[in-house]
Amino acid sequence: MGKFSMRHLLVVSVALNVSLLLRVAFETGTEGLDGVALLKQVVGGGVLAELHAYRQTHKATSSSSSSPSTATLVNYTEDRVINLDHGDPTMYTRYWQQAGDKSTIVIPGWQSVSYFSDIGNLCWFLEPEFAKQVLRLHQIVGNAVTRDRHIVVGTGSTQLFQAVLYALCPQDAIEPISVVSAAPYYSSYPAITDCVKSNLYKWAGDARSFSKGGPYIELVTSPNNPDGYSRQAVVNRTGGLLVHDLAYYWPQYTPITSPADHDIMLFTISKSIGHAGMRIGWAVVKDPEIAKKMVKYIELSTIGVSKDSQVRAAKVLEVVSDSYECTKSVEETLFDFSYRKMNERWTPLREAVEQSGLFSLPEFSPDFCKFSGRLFKPQPVMHLHTCMVRCAAFAWLKCEEPIEDCEAFLREHKILTRSGRHFGVSPEYVRISMLDRDENIDLFIERLSKIGLEQPI
Amino acid sequence: MGKFSMRHLLVVSVALNVSLLLRVAFETGTEGLDGVALLKQVVGGGVLAELHAYRQTHKATSSSSSSPSTATLVNYTEDRVINLDHGDPTMYTRYWQQAGDKSTIVIPGWQSVSYFSDIGNLCWFLEPEFAKQVLRLHQIVGNAVTRDRHIVVGTGSTQLFQAVLYALCPQDAIEPISVVSAAPYYSSYPAITDCVKSNLYKWAGDARSFSKGGPYIELVTSPNNPDGYSRQAVVNRTGGLLVHDLAYYWPQYTPITSPADHDIMLFTISKSIGHAGMRIGWAVVKDPEIAKKMVKYIELSTIGVSKDSQVRAAKVLEVVSDSYECTKSVEETLFDFSYRKMNERWTPLREAVEQSGLFSLPEFSPDFCKFSGRLFKPQPVMHLHTCMVRCAAFAWLKCEEPIEDCEAFLREHKILTRSGRHFGVSPEYVRISMLDRDENIDLFIERLSKIGLEQPI
Repeated sequence: MGKFSMRHLLVVSVALNVSLLLRVAFETGTEGLDGVALLKQVVGGGVLAELHAYRQTHKATSSSSSSPSTATLVNYTEDRVINLDHGDPTMYTRYWQQAGDKSTIVIPGWQSVSYFSDIGNLCWFLEPEFAKQVLRLHQIVGNAVTRDRHIVVGTGSTQLFQAVLYALCPQDAIEPISVVSAAPYYSSYPAITDCVKSNLYKWAGDARSFSKGGPYIELVTSPNNPDGYSRQAVVNRTGGLLVHDLAYYWPQYTPITSPADHDIMLFTISKSIGHAGMRIGWAVVKDPEIAKKMVKYIELSTIGVSKDSQVRAAKVLEVVSDSYECTKSVEETLFDFSYRKMNERWTPLREAVEQSGLFSLPEFSPDFCKFSGRLFKPQPVMHLHTCMVRCAAFAWLKCEEPIEDCEAFLREHKILTRSGRHFGVSPEYVRISMLDRDENIDLFIERLSKIGLEQPI
Repeated sequence: MGKFSMRHLLVVSVALNVSLLLRVAFETGTEGLDGVALLKQVVGGGVLAELHAYRQTHKATSSSSSSPSTATLVNYTEDRVINLDHGDPTMYTRYWQQAGDKSTIVIPGWQSVSYFSDIGNLCWFLEPEFAKQVLRLHQIVGNAVTRDRHIVVGTGSTQLFQAVLYALCPQDAIEPISVVSAAPYYSSYPAITDCVKSNLYKWAGDARSFSKGGPYIELVTSPNNPDGYSRQAVVNRTGGLLVHDLAYYWPQYTPITSPADHDIMLFTISKSIGHAGMRIGWAVVKDPEIAKKMVKYIELSTIGVSKDSQVRAAKVLEVVSDSYECTKSVEETLFDFSYRKMNERWTPLREAVEQSGLFSLPEFSPDFCKFSGRLFKPQPVMHLHTCMVRCAAFAWLKCEEPIEDCEAFLREHKILTRSGRHFGVSPEYVRISMLDRDENIDLFIERLSKIGLEQPI
């Protein structure tokens, strides 16, 4: 009882102290998480549980907090740091909030006791329902050949990437195999590859300047992180092993022109449907021996993959597929929602960039973002988006002369981005996440427009 | 509709084909998972989803399946392979089934979108509620000092072990640091340590015969896997870094004599309360710099840890703690249940081993399995078990002469165990899981008794 009162007092105290912030959160009109997450960027993590509890129990009583002046709010917005460094896909939160109860899951306490999910399967820790829903979604979207392939689940595609390196490199090699990718490449590839200084593999940088003989592994990220372009292997030499990272090969980001058909293809829940916190990815693998070695790696690394997250992932994937297979549904489907969002963000961003004269963005050739619904029942239905600009998950922004360090320049304007340096190219470039919350993206574009106006021509 | 009928037919067909097995499962009188899991050892994984669905919808109609003769059942039992190689803690399933709805969790579809759990925390992917329940349980059980320590969550303690190696080894070392543990050591340590042939660390075998100078890492597993003995560091030289793996330092396995107080302590959900499929472990770490490096490793390895499993783990931990803090509760608590189970298994196992003349087991000095409830409210309550034998999670069995290869010998009797070879000792030893289902443990002990009778004296 005493404990409760203390907690209650703390909540009230915190609520008064951060009333301004709460007000901002409430005024955005978002439900639940968004507002709290917004605050999280300003307030330290310690009081957040309290704030969250406060919002849960005081949703309708925000008027009791003291009301800040409009001027203060403007200052707050202007001063706020916008962190678009990470590709945290919080944009998807609202879709799943709107989707309601059908994606809710109930897990009884006795579930997830055994290590094993499917002992008859090559991948013994793969939940059968998750595998089923993965195959079903690929079938509907048409973005990957899955027939006669093995599905290997991983703790995100990051773990699967390491599992692939382990699987492709012979244990008795004299020297580490070179791992390359064409710059600009995903900034985490070098750090992950060289994390524990393996003697099996070693990061060897930009695939375009790779000249060493012998076996090598080339990572082909398509559409590419950070720049959004479609890609193919560039080294093309004997002894080359290819890994296709297809995290962004989904209709909200790029036209699905044909089902990808490669030996090793990596996908992830975080970028396809938004649940980064589940830490679930999957690989589609042709060669059973490679798949077995990947399973062995995941066994040694984490003894399998969270069953709870696999079960949840299966449920949300099912909801996505159901919404496409039910033609009578009037609700907005996940890919429609996220494509629309991306387009609503890219259009004003391109405008702001063009007007500024300070920045530039990749130019994509105009094409249809065609997400074929040819397998829909009871009769084929085509979903077509007119997509004059490809809606990449990241804006790969270039600062024009005389700005040399784009990341530092934007940081001065309280916009946090990731420098081109991390992607193997010049600091004139930065990567900016386009998957964040509306509030952050809107504020970012607004601020970018103002920077253009402020600068001398 | 057509799809449903096909599925229904398949279910019926499967049900008829495996009616014998179903009958066995039903006769054990277990609820839900146990029976299915029993079948899993005999039937391939492919039909199991159907079987499970069948059982869920036909719980009361087992009489409709054809009834096998008693003779067939006996043969089935006698021929069955008993797999006690893995430490799969399926013993706990029944406890959680009996615990009922209070450990059930409901997760809405919009949860687990962001990567971040607690950005103010050193361990940014740690769910605050999970951390809170971990600290609470340690406080109740009294098995670890947690004050002024950092909690780092991992995808099982296996990942945390690797995170510790990464954290303890300088990136610029000239040669890999030796990693040792006194034999018999946990069989996975060598394979995990040398998995990708790191230049940072290298498995160097039995700590007792380790003579190399310079820095080293010693793994102290206490109680030890496989033999159950309490342990302390054995090398004790300058430059030594200690990692305490306390996966089994819980009251069902060993007396909790005092709160463990070491620099780095590893724990896991799988062995403390049974949910191996969650893949959740935690480290209690004194030095914030070490904790930060561990977090960095987990960031590079899997970009955090499943939120869903952390949230579920928090719930089941809460149920365990609640049952101890509520002194009016008449239900059996988790540690009571599991201690009783272990004791019910060890007593007949020791009898069978003594009578056989073929085997021997570790002798533990008689002691109280004292699980102190001194922190219970409203007044101190002591829970005492009289425990003449320590109830280790594994039976570390030695085959006496003339049997040289104990694993091969038991395999002939269709008992699968793990050879002493994997633990750095002679093949006269095997490790046998004592955490499996009742049916398997009972059958194992029964079969072991018969082996003794069958052999010529």
